[in-house]
Amino acid sequence: MKIALAQMNSLLGDSSFNTEKMIEFITKAHEQSSKLVVFPELNLFGYSPVDLLERTHIISDQHRCINKVLAHIPGSMTVAFGALTKNTNTNGKRFFNTFILAQKNKILAKSHKILLPSYDVFDETRHFESGVSPRIISLGEKNILLTICEDIWAFDNNYYAQNPLLNLKKPVDLILNLSASPFTLNKLDRRKDLFKKVCRGVGAPMVYVNTVGAHDEIIFDGNSVFLNSDGEILDQASGFQEDLLCLEVNDSLTEVIKSTSVLFSDKKKKASAESPEEKLFESLSLGIKDYFLKLGFEKAHLGLSGGVDSALVYALSAQALGYKNVQPLYLPSPFSSDLSHDLAQEMSEFYKAELIEFQISSLFSELNKNWKNAFNSEAQSLTQENFQARLRGLLLMGYANENSSLLMNTSNKSELAVGYSTLYGDQCGALAPIGDLLKHQVYDLCRWINKSKKGFIPEAILTRAPTAELKENQTDQDSLPEYDLLDASVYKIVDQRQAAESETDKWVLNRLYKSEFKRWQSPPILKISDHSFGRGRRFPIVHRLKL
Amino acid sequence: MKIALAQMNSLLGDSSFNTEKMIEFITKAHEQSSKLVVFPELNLFGYSPVDLLERTHIISDQHRCINKVLAHIPGSMTVAFGALTKNTNTNGKRFFNTFILAQKNKILAKSHKILLPSYDVFDETRHFESGVSPRIISLGEKNILLTICEDIWAFDNNYYAQNPLLNLKKPVDLILNLSASPFTLNKLDRRKDLFKKVCRGVGAPMVYVNTVGAHDEIIFDGNSVFLNSDGEILDQASGFQEDLLCLEVNDSLTEVIKSTSVLFSDKKKKASAESPEEKLFESLSLGIKDYFLKLGFEKAHLGLSGGVDSALVYALSAQALGYKNVQPLYLPSPFSSDLSHDLAQEMSEFYKAELIEFQISSLFSELNKNWKNAFNSEAQSLTQENFQARLRGLLLMGYANENSSLLMNTSNKSELAVGYSTLYGDQCGALAPIGDLLKHQVYDLCRWINKSKKGFIPEAILTRAPTAELKENQTDQDSLPEYDLLDASVYKIVDQRQAAESETDKWVLNRLYKSEFKRWQSPPILKISDHSFGRGRRFPIVHRLKL
Repeated sequence: MKIALAQMNSLLGDSSFNTEKMIEFITKAHEQSSKLVVFPELNLFGYSPVDLLERTHIISDQHRCINKVLAHIPGSMTVAFGALTKNTNTNGKRFFNTFILAQKNKILAKSHKILLPSYDVFDETRHFESGVSPRIISLGEKNILLTICEDIWAFDNNYYAQNPLLNLKKPVDLILNLSASPFTLNKLDRRKDLFKKVCRGVGAPMVYVNTVGAHDEIIFDGNSVFLNSDGEILDQASGFQEDLLCLEVNDSLTEVIKSTSVLFSDKKKKASAESPEEKLFESLSLGIKDYFLKLGFEKAHLGLSGGVDSALVYALSAQALGYKNVQPLYLPSPFSSDLSHDLAQEMSEFYKAELIEFQISSLFSELNKNWKNAFNSEAQSLTQENFQARLRGLLLMGYANENSSLLMNTSNKSELAVGYSTLYGDQCGALAPIGDLLKHQVYDLCRWINKSKKGFIPEAILTRAPTAELKENQTDQDSLPEYDLLDASVYKIVDQRQAAESETDKWVLNRLYKSEFKRWQSPPILKISDHSFGRGRRFPIVHRLKL
Repeated sequence: MKIALAQMNSLLGDSSFNTEKMIEFITKAHEQSSKLVVFPELNLFGYSPVDLLERTHIISDQHRCINKVLAHIPGSMTVAFGALTKNTNTNGKRFFNTFILAQKNKILAKSHKILLPSYDVFDETRHFESGVSPRIISLGEKNILLTICEDIWAFDNNYYAQNPLLNLKKPVDLILNLSASPFTLNKLDRRKDLFKKVCRGVGAPMVYVNTVGAHDEIIFDGNSVFLNSDGEILDQASGFQEDLLCLEVNDSLTEVIKSTSVLFSDKKKKASAESPEEKLFESLSLGIKDYFLKLGFEKAHLGLSGGVDSALVYALSAQALGYKNVQPLYLPSPFSSDLSHDLAQEMSEFYKAELIEFQISSLFSELNKNWKNAFNSEAQSLTQENFQARLRGLLLMGYANENSSLLMNTSNKSELAVGYSTLYGDQCGALAPIGDLLKHQVYDLCRWINKSKKGFIPEAILTRAPTAELKENQTDQDSLPEYDLLDASVYKIVDQRQAAESETDKWVLNRLYKSEFKRWQSPPILKISDHSFGRGRRFPIVHRLKL
C-alpha cells in the first residue's frame, strides 16, 4: 500500500491558496504512485479559524474549493482532508469540523469531529457542532477509522465524559487522524505516549498527519507519523516545515518498505528536534517566520539593550527572517553603561548590521523639564523609569512607521508574570517571541545558540547581572526575587496552577493578579509551554481571588 | 407566599465577602417574613469566573462558604443560590455551575446548569461539566423547576441540539431561574420575548433573578422579575443597582399583593431605563463605577481634546466616580485650535475642575530634531501624527504613575473598527467606556446628557467637524467615510456579521481585518452591543480571509 503524509502549511482563511497547494501535493504524491494521501485537520480553510467563522457566508467559497479538489484527484487515488462543512440542522452550532474521504469527483465519506476542545487556546465549541459517533469506512479490503485530532486525545486527557474510540462496532485495520496539534515543549513526548494508547486501544496502525506552520501565538510543528498497532513510530515527517512523506508499506501495514520525502530532493529534511533548546529554536524561528510571511512583512527591528532578552530576540529574528532584515537600535538613557553599548555593538557586528544609536537623554531631560514646569514638582523615580521605557517605545514605533518594519517585543515570561515591565514601553511590539520563556530558558537557549553556532550572543551578556538600567546602579534583583526562585514560583503558580506555599510563591501570586491589566494589552506571545500568557489564558482584571 | 428577589452585586472571587452579603440579604428578607429567597447565578463566587477556575484548589473555600450560608438561614426559610461545586467523576470538566436549594443547615437539592454557553463573552465549556436533566422539586405543595440562566435560553436561540425544558416529566407550579445575563442595548426586549416563551412553554410563573454589577468588559443590569404563567411581568427589581425585592404573592401565584424594595426605604429605587440613551448612560456609569470600586481605585483622568469622544467620557466618568475624582488634561500640539482649548476649558469649569494644560509642542519639536539628527531626514507626516498621540499617551500614563489615577480611554467603536487610532497613543488607557459605541451613539448620548441635565457637553463640541488635530486643517473625513456611512457599514459588518456589499462596506472590511493587531492590544471595552470588540470577539491577526 502506498500512502502519502501531506504535511502542508495552510494559509488561514485563504481556501483558494490552500486548494492550489493541495492539488500540488496530490500531483506530487501521484508521481510517487501514492494511493492514499492524507492531509491535516481543516487544511482547506486553515486552523484555528476561531471567530472567522462568524462570517458564515464563507461556506459557499468552501464548497467551491472542495469541488475543485475533488476534480483534481487522479482516478486511482483516495484523498483524506479536512474542511468546514455546514450543519444543516436548524439547531446547534453552524459548522462541522469535517473529515472528507474522497476520490475523483466523489465524496466517499464525511465524518465530523466528535471531541471539540474547549480549553487553553482551543475554542471549538463556539462555532462547531459535535459529530455523533466515529465512522469506519471500507476501502479496498481495509476497515479505516476516520478521526480528527482531539478525537484520539480522550486516551490522554480526562476532559470528556466518554472516549468515543472505545468499544467500536467493527474491527479496524487502519486509523487515520487529521491533526492540528499545537507545539509545546513537552508535546512530542505526550504524543508518543498517546500514540501507544490509541493504537493499542483500537488495535490498529495509524497515519497521523499534523499541520505545520504558525499564526498569531500558536505554532504547529508537523512531525506527522506512521505508527504500527503497538503505537511505535515506523516513519516520521519533518519537524517545523512542510513535508510530503510518501511511504510504501507492506500489506499487513507492519513495515515501511520505502520512504521518500518528496519536497526534499535537493533540500535537507529536518529531523525532529531533540533537546529542549533545539525545539525552542526551531519552534520560535517558525513562529516568527510565519508571522511575517503570512502578514506580508519582511523587516523587523528591536531595541537592543545589551541585555539577554533583546539579544535572544535578535538572534531568533535574524535566523527566522534573514539577518539583513533585522535592524537593531540602541537607545541609551543617562543610566546606560558603556558595557551595554559595547555588547549591543558587538552583537550587531556579528550580524553585519549597522547599529542605530539614538540617545534618549535630551528627550528625557526635556520631558522632565516640561513635567516640572507643568506640575511644579519633579516626577517620582518610578515615573521617570517609565518615561525612559515609553520614550523608547515611542521611538521604536516611529521606526516601524517610517520603515514598514515590525517591532519585536523582548519580554520574557518571568517578568510578564509579575508585571516587571512598562505598559506602552518595553511591552510594545507586534510579536513577543520569548514571552513564554522563563528567564532560565532565555539563558539556556542563548548558550545553545552559541554552542550550535546558530547565531551569536556575546558571552558577557550571559554573565553580567540583569538590569533595566532605568536608574543609577539598578539591577533586576532590587525589585525581583533571584531569578531561579522567581522562575520556580512562576512555573509552579502559572504553568502548574498550584496553590502558593512559599513566601516567593505568595509574592508571585499577588503580583500575578495585580499585573493582569498589563498582560491584557500584550502583543501576541508565541506559545511553547502548556500554559502560556495570551489568548489561551483568560483571566479577569477585576476580581478579588487571593488563592 | 412571600418571595424575595435578592439581586446582589457579587465581588468576583471573594466568596467570604459574598457570603457576608448573602447573610445580610437573607436577614433583611427574613424581617419581611419572606419564605423563599432567590439569588443570582453563581452569586457565592461571582460571575464570570473564566480561568480563575484553573485555581482548582479554591473549591474547599467555596465549600466552607456554602456551609456558613446554610447555618445562617432562618428556620422558616428556603434559599435558592448559585455556587461552584466539584465534579467528582474522574472524567469531564472539574466544576459544575450549581443551583443550590437549601434550608437551615440542609441542602434540599442541587441542580447543575445544563446549557453551557460558549459564544460571545461566554466560556463556560472551559471549566464546567453539563448537568444531565432539569430537576423539579416539591416545596410545600408546589412543584418547583430549578434552572440557571442559559437553561431557559434555548427558547430563544438555536445554539443547542435540544431544549431541556421541553417535555418535562412533571407539571411545574413555579420556575426559578438564577441568572447572570450581560446587558446589551436590546437585551431587555429580548428577555421580554424570552419570558413569554418560557412561561407559556413550561406553563408556569417564574422568578427570574439576574445579577447586577460589572467587571472588566461586562455589565450586568439586574432588572430581575416575577412573571405570571403568560410571561407577563408582575413586578420588577431595579435596573443597574442592587435590590432586594420582597413580594407577597397570592396562593395561585397570579398576583402580587404587596411589593417592598427593602434597600430603598430612604433611597430612590431606579426604574428600568427606557430610551437607548438612558440605558447607555446607566450601564456605562455602572461599568465605570464598578471597575474602579472593585479594583480599589478612586481617581480617574483623561486627555480632554475639545472633541466629542473625550467630552462624553468625561461626563460619564464624572457621573460614575464623582466629578471631584476626575481630572481633565489638555495637551495641545502646534495643530490644536483655540476652539479646542476653549471647549475643554468650558467643560472643565462646569465640572469645577482645574484643567491641567501641558503643551506638547516643545517635546514634539525636540523629538523631531532628535529624529532628524539620528536619521538625517524628517519623519514622515503619519509618523509625526503618531508622535503627537504617543507623547500624549506617555504624559497621561505619567500622570497615572504620579497620582494613582487610572487613565480613561476615549476610543469609539467606529474608529476602533477601522483602526483610526494610534496604538500606544490614544489607544492607551485602563478602560474604554465608549469603545462599543458607534459615532452616532456618542453624539446621541451627549445630547441626551445635556437634555436630561445629567452633565454638560458644550454645544459647539456637538456641532464642530470631528478632527484629530494632528496636522494642519485636518478633519476625520480626510481619512474616513462620512460617519453616517461608516457607522452603517461597521454595524452591518461587525454587529450583524453580514457580507460586504457597498464600496464603504468593502473598505470597512479591509480596514477591519488589517487593524486587528491594534485591537488585540486594546484596554477592556465596556460591552453594550451584541457584538463588541474585546474578549468576546476572537479574531486572529494572521489570516487571509477576504470575505
